Amino acid sequence: MTAAKRLLVINPNTSKEMTAVIQASVNQSLGLLGGIVEATTVCADQGVASVEGSFDEVVSAYWTVDKVMSLLDAYDGVLVACFSNHASVKALREATNKPVMHIMESAVMQSLPLGAKFSIVTDSNHWKPLLEEGVQTILGSMERCASVRSSDMTALDTVTLSKQQVLDKLMKASQEAVSHDGAEVILLGCAGMSQMNQAIEQTLGVPVIDAVSSGVMAMVGLLLSNLRTSPQGMYTPLPARPDEVSVPNDGILKAYGRHSK
Amino acid sequence: MTAAKRLLVINPNTSKEMTAVIQASVNQSLGLLGGIVEATTVCADQGVASVEGSFDEVVSAYWTVDKVMSLLDAYDGVLVACFSNHASVKALREATNKPVMHIMESAVMQSLPLGAKFSIVTDSNHWKPLLEEGVQTILGSMERCASVRSSDMTALDTVTLSKQQVLDKLMKASQEAVSHDGAEVILLGCAGMSQMNQAIEQTLGVPVIDAVSSGVMAMVGLLLSNLRTSPQGMYTPLPARPDEVSVPNDGILKAYGRHSK
Amino acid sequence: MTAAKRLLVINPNTSKEMTAVIQASVNQSLGLLGGIVEATTVCADQGVASVEGSFDEVVSAYWTVDKVMSLLDAYDGVLVACFSNHASVKALREATNKPVMHIMESAVMQSLPLGAKFSIVTDSNHWKPLLEEGVQTILGSMERCASVRSSDMTALDTVTLSKQQVLDKLMKASQEAVSHDGAEVILLGCAGMSQMNQAIEQTLGVPVIDAVSSGVMAMVGLLLSNLRTSPQGMYTPLPARPDEVSVPNDGILKAYGRHSK
Amino acid sequence: MTAAKRLLVINPNTSKEMTAVIQASVNQSLGLLGGIVEATTVCADQGVASVEGSFDEVVSAYWTVDKVMSLLDAYDGVLVACFSNHASVKALREATNKPVMHIMESAVMQSLPLGAKFSIVTDSNHWKPLLEEGVQTILGSMERCASVRSSDMTALDTVTLSKQQVLDKLMKASQEAVSHDGAEVILLGCAGMSQMNQAIEQTLGVPVIDAVSSGVMAMVGLLLSNLRTSPQGMYTPLPARPDEVSVPNDGILKAYGRHSK
Amino acid sequence: MTAAKRLLVINPNTSKEMTAVIQASVNQSLGLLGGIVEATTVCADQGVASVEGSFDEVVSAYWTVDKVMSLLDAYDGVLVACFSNHASVKALREATNKPVMHIMESAVMQSLPLGAKFSIVTDSNHWKPLLEEGVQTILGSMERCASVRSSDMTALDTVTLSKQQVLDKLMKASQEAVSHDGAEVILLGCAGMSQMNQAIEQTLGVPVIDAVSSGVMAMVGLLLSNLRTSPQGMYTPLPARPDEVSVPNDGILKAYGRHSK
Amino acid sequence: MTAAKRLLVINPNTSKEMTAVIQASVNQSLGLLGGIVEATTVCADQGVASVEGSFDEVVSAYWTVDKVMSLLDAYDGVLVACFSNHASVKALREATNKPVMHIMESAVMQSLPLGAKFSIVTDSNHWKPLLEEGVQTILGSMERCASVRSSDMTALDTVTLSKQQVLDKLMKASQEAVSHDGAEVILLGCAGMSQMNQAIEQTLGVPVIDAVSSGVMAMVGLLLSNLRTSPQGMYTPLPARPDEVSVPNDGILKAYGRHSK
Repeated sequence: MTAAKRLLVINPNTSKEMTAVIQASVNQSLGLLGGIVEATTVCADQGVASVEGSFDEVVSAYWTVDKVMSLLDAYDGVLVACFSNHASVKALREATNKPVMHIMESAVMQSLPLGAKFSIVTDSNHWKPLLEEGVQTILGSMERCASVRSSDMTALDTVTLSKQQVLDKLMKASQEAVSHDGAEVILLGCAGMSQMNQAIEQTLGVPVIDAVSSGVMAMVGLLLSNLRTSPQGMYTPLPARPDEVSVPNDGILKAYGRHSK
Repeated sequence: MTAAKRLLVINPNTSKEMTAVIQASVNQSLGLLGGIVEATTVCADQGVASVEGSFDEVVSAYWTVDKVMSLLDAYDGVLVACFSNHASVKALREATNKPVMHIMESAVMQSLPLGAKFSIVTDSNHWKPLLEEGVQTILGSMERCASVRSSDMTALDTVTLSKQQVLDKLMKASQEAVSHDGAEVILLGCAGMSQMNQAIEQTLGVPVIDAVSSGVMAMVGLLLSNLRTSPQGMYTPLPARPDEVSVPNDGILKAYGRHSK
Repeated sequence: MTAAKRLLVINPNTSKEMTAVIQASVNQSLGLLGGIVEATTVCADQGVASVEGSFDEVVSAYWTVDKVMSLLDAYDGVLVACFSNHASVKALREATNKPVMHIMESAVMQSLPLGAKFSIVTDSNHWKPLLEEGVQTILGSMERCASVRSSDMTALDTVTLSKQQVLDKLMKASQEAVSHDGAEVILLGCAGMSQMNQAIEQTLGVPVIDAVSSGVMAMVGLLLSNLRTSPQGMYTPLPARPDEVSVPNDGILKAYGRHSK
Repeated sequence: MTAAKRLLVINPNTSKEMTAVIQASVNQSLGLLGGIVEATTVCADQGVASVEGSFDEVVSAYWTVDKVMSLLDAYDGVLVACFSNHASVKALREATNKPVMHIMESAVMQSLPLGAKFSIVTDSNHWKPLLEEGVQTILGSMERCASVRSSDMTALDTVTLSKQQVLDKLMKASQEAVSHDGAEVILLGCAGMSQMNQAIEQTLGVPVIDAVSSGVMAMVGLLLSNLRTSPQGMYTPLPARPDEVSVPNDGILKAYGRHSK
Repeated sequence: MTAAKRLLVINPNTSKEMTAVIQASVNQSLGLLGGIVEATTVCADQGVASVEGSFDEVVSAYWTVDKVMSLLDAYDGVLVACFSNHASVKALREATNKPVMHIMESAVMQSLPLGAKFSIVTDSNHWKPLLEEGVQTILGSMERCASVRSSDMTALDTVTLSKQQVLDKLMKASQEAVSHDGAEVILLGCAGMSQMNQAIEQTLGVPVIDAVSSGVMAMVGLLLSNLRTSPQGMYTPLPARPDEVSVPNDGILKAYGRHSK
Repeated sequence: MTAAKRLLVINPNTSKEMTAVIQASVNQSLGLLGGIVEATTVCADQGVASVEGSFDEVVSAYWTVDKVMSLLDAYDGVLVACFSNHASVKALREATNKPVMHIMESAVMQSLPLGAKFSIVTDSNHWKPLLEEGVQTILGSMERCASVRSSDMTALDTVTLSKQQVLDKLMKASQEAVSHDGAEVILLGCAGMSQMNQAIEQTLGVPVIDAVSSGVMAMVGLLLSNLRTSPQGMYTPLPARPDEVSVPNDGILKAYGRHSK
């Protein structure tokens, strides 16, 4: 009997609370699959407590690739649990041919068979252009995306507001996406919103995608099918260049073929 | 303990041989998943022995929806095992909210995390514009698609040529897709090519997607997540209109709410 | 003297009333042309009384191609009188090189020289995404299309409401297309709306296209110029494959080269 | 009995020979229609002998609008017989609501029902980017256009080479468009090439559009249907501003509401 | 020491007032650069007092190219001070390899590093579709353009209304572009609006581009870098064809290699 | 008299040689402008010796933003001297409203008025998809880009090969871009290629853009015009969140409002 495939799930910020939320969602999805794949959920060792824009992403991506590279030998694939086109994913696909995904692409993909147009509901206005750019990169166009809607929350709000207040704001934005933008499917654009999809689905009557769950399902498909990142073109493997790199991070040095002390 | 989900796989042509090939691939994929989902593979009762273009598709779609509607009560979802944007899928999404996919969209989706550009290798020249149109519909653009390449075979060739001759033709077209078109991932654009992906992957060193397997994996994700087709917009449910339909097919009549004799 | 060209106009649903409306419009247009072309208007023998979505289209396309193939020997070209990218058209272009059009593409084409942006006014919300997809296929983009606007009618409404009530709803949707969406030309997106274009044109002061009339004009141009469907690529001719088809329909069997009993 | 509609055909250069070629093609097309429309073909009084690029177009457009405005009262519509997105057309649509077309848009439109992809065969390399820009404007994208192919002729060549030599060059470019670019329909991208479409069609077996003929057919459709240019948006009518214009051209002055001496 | 580069700025209408406004803006920008480049600002000798649409542009382009060609020997480059994709620019790029720009392309370019989406605020509704077409040509898509907003002024209004009234209308349109369309940068789409950018920038807090200033900056970059228009493709040089041209304008004749009297 | 504006030029890798090449090019461009702006050229303190892909970019972006933030108080704007859509630029636009550009966007912008289509010539195949993605982001489409061409060099080659060998490879790729892809302007897609543009321009006769020089010219325009990054949308300013960040880098900590020890 072959050993089960092992999946590394990384929360690219430093929040333990967010990591726990992600872990619960991962476990629930894997439970549905009868344990055919094993997963570990970790977060970055350093960086920012939440990723709120492009500066945060530069910081987060650095510590994420360092963390993943230091753990990767023990896993068969990586899921980056951030609802964005997070830069670590593209980088990791050069550093390993083990499959690597982020939960934005899996959520977008899972929505496609369920309706002609999807909308992403995110927290702050700042994410709207960033996620639009992400959809453009993932699908090559915005044709299938009805809209990216902000729910007019700051990052702080998602923590300080009550669960019900957060849900009310997401519900309002989702409703507007359906009514005004022609959304047929809703994607909750933040890992931290994952428990709220059922409530919105029941109220609005349209499918609402749980991004973390979609990522687990897609990674399981890739792992069981033994599919690996292509070595051609965009993800040409990173060659060993130990003499060309100078950083104080063991994981990153390892990616360049340098033995750390 | 809840009963396992049941998946109906339909081969939209009347070929028993092709149905057997599909069934084997379905079973292999489900085997990897430990039987968490059960599947039945059937083919259309009437129509054409292979779907080679748009006229065939009109004929095939009619008998496919009739067959599926007559069986659907016993299943939780449907996979149409035809590598095309087969018209039956859109139709069935109106007739039921159980998830329905075809293997072209699942194969395209599964390829996206593995490389920036994919090519589809199909048999005849006739399929090139049809599959290009399919990609445009699925992703909303051709940006992620490096090319659709014909392997210069007629439908007849895939049967009368030896396995090795068919493989040689697919290998040549795949090689050209990688060298000339910038393909990073290859999709074999016909259900009947599914056993040949491994040989091509080993020779060319790029991932080659098995469309039937990708379809099973994606449907399992939808079924286990209890996701259903959106009732909004494109797939607005077919209302019961028993008095407006006159056809001799029980499955179709059932979709319109008419009790067949 | 050469005999006049003969045009077959097919209403792809089974409604005699709708067929009569189409016939009147065809005759009026041909009258303007001095009888240089002769036309016959028929409807499908079986299927649905109106085409309201993708399931209906699968059913309608099947019976439409069967009907057309059984009559085609006596005609020089075919106009499918359905304001949609009806699947029968693509199919028939494989089965004959006689020119085949539908009235959505002729209406879109006729509008292009009259304004930079057109809007389509249709009945129900269900048609909005379907017609958007049709524009994308016909022109290759949505750039020239200001919007597809629903007039918030069900199919039933167009029959049960008074003429004035229907006109009021179309007028309101057309007005909004001009004011909010930047439409410069209006297309009435249903064969049954053809008598109402003049009233809307007079009130709003923008050109309103009669789709059936546009189809007759475009077909006359193709017929008199002896233009035929290309045998290359998308519409590669359907080869005779009598042994590969099993259906109870004489017209369809004929397309595959099988002598019916 | 109502008087026949009158069509003004303008050749926007000063070549009498080209004007005669266009007139012959116009008459042939109108003959097929039984004289239901009357046409006059004229050319610009001043300007350039052939339009070979953007500088020529600026010069040609000026004298074209001057000529058309001086004659327009006697006509019901205008066809600009230049295979380009000639600037005079947009200008004239502001100066009159009588329908105005150029033969590039009519040719593109007539090709759409005949195949999924068309190519334009033009003379010099200089026209390739200009016609690509024209297709983008007419259809809103290049999706339906397989290619614009130069036949490597200078403007001079089309006059000094023998008819057979010109045909050979067009044939070669058309053949390459079909073989290499996936063209299903060919458009000859110059009014002066109009007699050669039949020879190419017979050799290559794909439809070849006669642009002048397509223009006559489309204008007849607009004229008989009493369709006029929209006053909204792009073609907002030119208001009378007699005091704001200072030019020595009576036709242009008339467009601005100034009585010439 | 090399002589300073000399820039010709042409206002393509006949308004002396507008020319003075442009000249002031040019001088201010060049002053910032310490006189490293010298500029002369002129206007067309004949034509229209303001360019309000496509008919005006045909007239304006003719007299603009005539004027520029008659002065060009004394200058190293040309800036067409009209916020539109003015036809004279494309024409002049064929007639000389000295760099030629218009202020719409420089303004669009200068905005790109300052925000992800820009909006153009123009005067009348007529300009909206024309400027949208301009953006499509300059960037190849509308992706970066949030909107083109009319400020609901006629050309007359900009002269007869008070400065404050004009500013109020521009402010309102700019505010709506930011609030409703997601504009991050504003472009004032008329040379005559150039003094108002600072007031709008201070009120709205987003960058507002002065188009004339952006044109001077971009032309200085091209001139100091000795960059010239490409002789390949779109701007293939106009060959001398003195015998093929008949116009009464010395500048235009010179472009064709004809010695005027 | 106001003090001169100060520009910070950052080479995002750690190579002193490359930094010297960039500095020479910056000084030459500023010399043409008479010293109206002052510049300092630095490189990252840690990271990689050259940026060859997405993993390198994650590492490089981190150390680039750290370096820039530690120096920024003394400067008025930042030019990132890397021919790619380098992630540091987007990040820095959140951390400061001083203008920030990279040399890929300035080079693309400077090419637009010189020809309808540009090609980028880069070193390795790996950069082709990355630079295509960059063009898509900068312009919103690939319409204006004829191609991205690799000159089949590794990063190592540009150092170990002779100057003439490198030039030969760039010349060959540039020639193919002009002949096969329709390029009218060439962009050399690497800061290290900046001395070679003149030789290629003289041989091929098309404009060749020096990316570093284009960046200096564009930054001078922004600085003298006092233009700043928009605080709306994509570049919403990074709020102070000292408690949410944990990294050992003083520059980055400063961006988050944390006083370093």
